Amino acid sequence: MKIDAGARFLIVGLGLLGGSYAQALKKQGYPVRAVTRSQSSIDYALTNGLIDSGSAYPDPDLLAWADVVVLAVYPHVLVEWVEVNQEHLRPGVLITDVTGVKGCVVDRVQALLRPDLEYVPAHPMAGRETLGVQNADCRIFQGANYIVTPTEKNTPEAVSACEDLGRILGFARISRLTPAEHDRMIGFVSQLTHCIAVALMTCNDIQRLESYTGDSFRDLTRIAKINDEMWSELFLDNRPALLEQMDAFTAQFTKMRDLLERRDVEGMRQMMRQSTARRKALEQPEP
Amino acid sequence: MKIDAGARFLIVGLGLLGGSYAQALKKQGYPVRAVTRSQSSIDYALTNGLIDSGSAYPDPDLLAWADVVVLAVYPHVLVEWVEVNQEHLRPGVLITDVTGVKGCVVDRVQALLRPDLEYVPAHPMAGRETLGVQNADCRIFQGANYIVTPTEKNTPEAVSACEDLGRILGFARISRLTPAEHDRMIGFVSQLTHCIAVALMTCNDIQRLESYTGDSFRDLTRIAKINDEMWSELFLDNRPALLEQMDAFTAQFTKMRDLLERRDVEGMRQMMRQSTARRKALEQPEP
Repeated sequence: MKIDAGARFLIVGLGLLGGSYAQALKKQGYPVRAVTRSQSSIDYALTNGLIDSGSAYPDPDLLAWADVVVLAVYPHVLVEWVEVNQEHLRPGVLITDVTGVKGCVVDRVQALLRPDLEYVPAHPMAGRETLGVQNADCRIFQGANYIVTPTEKNTPEAVSACEDLGRILGFARISRLTPAEHDRMIGFVSQLTHCIAVALMTCNDIQRLESYTGDSFRDLTRIAKINDEMWSELFLDNRPALLEQMDAFTAQFTKMRDLLERRDVEGMRQMMRQSTARRKALEQPEP
Repeated sequence: MKIDAGARFLIVGLGLLGGSYAQALKKQGYPVRAVTRSQSSIDYALTNGLIDSGSAYPDPDLLAWADVVVLAVYPHVLVEWVEVNQEHLRPGVLITDVTGVKGCVVDRVQALLRPDLEYVPAHPMAGRETLGVQNADCRIFQGANYIVTPTEKNTPEAVSACEDLGRILGFARISRLTPAEHDRMIGFVSQLTHCIAVALMTCNDIQRLESYTGDSFRDLTRIAKINDEMWSELFLDNRPALLEQMDAFTAQFTKMRDLLERRDVEGMRQMMRQSTARRKALEQPEP
């Protein structure tokens, strides 16, 4: 199982990410078709050259055409979609996804999947504060991270093919984690940060706030503009890992608060020096 | 008291901010001199055309030359500097500063100030994660906010002159707050955000973190690279207001945590919708 030069891609769900996948794949010369619920999304994608053709219902002929299926839908839609539609896929098809939480879908999909299909979960860590195929832009993948989360049910060949897809899309770093490691990591670097931004943006109600903010406040609240439907679902799907991360953050934040209350300047400076060293390390290019 | 076309500026403290003030003022054609502790900072500023001349000690002739004195030094240095050096200033001089906390300096400076001098406190809300005059760049003022924090001891003319300085430097929005309002505001928009970034950056120790982060984590931790000497002093100088803001944030963050624990999706979505609306309002240009 590998991604051949003329591999035929079916994008399921033409939102911001599905549309950006389509755009990147078309630019690389792959045939791309799409299935999505809204005809206007299909029309937009056709008009703007993101896909070759598409359908607003899961047309069996379209499904039978695909070599690679990218599920770019909400987690709760994903499992059901595979269950209902897999019968139309050809043997040997590679299925992957873009879901931001893995534990809640990976086992369920792999448990019900036909033995002659393979699902390799992946998480493209790219996004925007805007929604829909109208905002699709494959430049969001440049410099970004792509995490593949295989299980023991996956073959090395399919995992490699899924990693190749990350490279084809233009991601800067491709890495592997188990679904559980992934969910813990994402609870930290993505979901916790969104919780913080929402809490920061709502903990004070100030008039003419724009006159008093500096870059730091604007940076920390950029993601406070949030798709509440999607993120509440992602939070709930990763509840234990996210709660654990929220508690770890609260413990550290409370430590800083208590150091300040006790006027422990050296303690505060030590935390600041540690955060400075870690943030610098984050900026360094890989060896 | 106003800033005349040829007003002579003395910058006290040639760091990132003092150097950026000097650069902006020189570009506007004002005579600019500086007093700072390090001769190499003077040399750098001279070589790069940020000042006309300078001294590594508070030369009385230099002090007697100035029409406007900008104190760009740490809070604990500021009060003592005025006490020791004000005798050399000419009557009618306008003194202003760049200090990020006001309560701890404003009353003390105004209490000891000669009656024929006037100190109008100001906070230019611009900065960088780098230090020193070598990183001075007056473009940091573009689009940024400038807050003047006068007291009843100030004359309307001097307050206007200080606001004019903000415009001369190129700030986008000039506003007025009392020192107490300022410190509460800064506890929220600036100090709290730095506490959050430091806690976030230090609450987990993960190898190869750069492979898993998205824009959100990088945005929220940009300011975790922090000047520990300066910020610990600023935190301590604003301790009651900052503790209050930290507790307000913790309460809201804990609310989100408890909603998640109780699986209260509608409660989470309500917080997200409120944060989205407020963040959008922050982006809107003033009427």
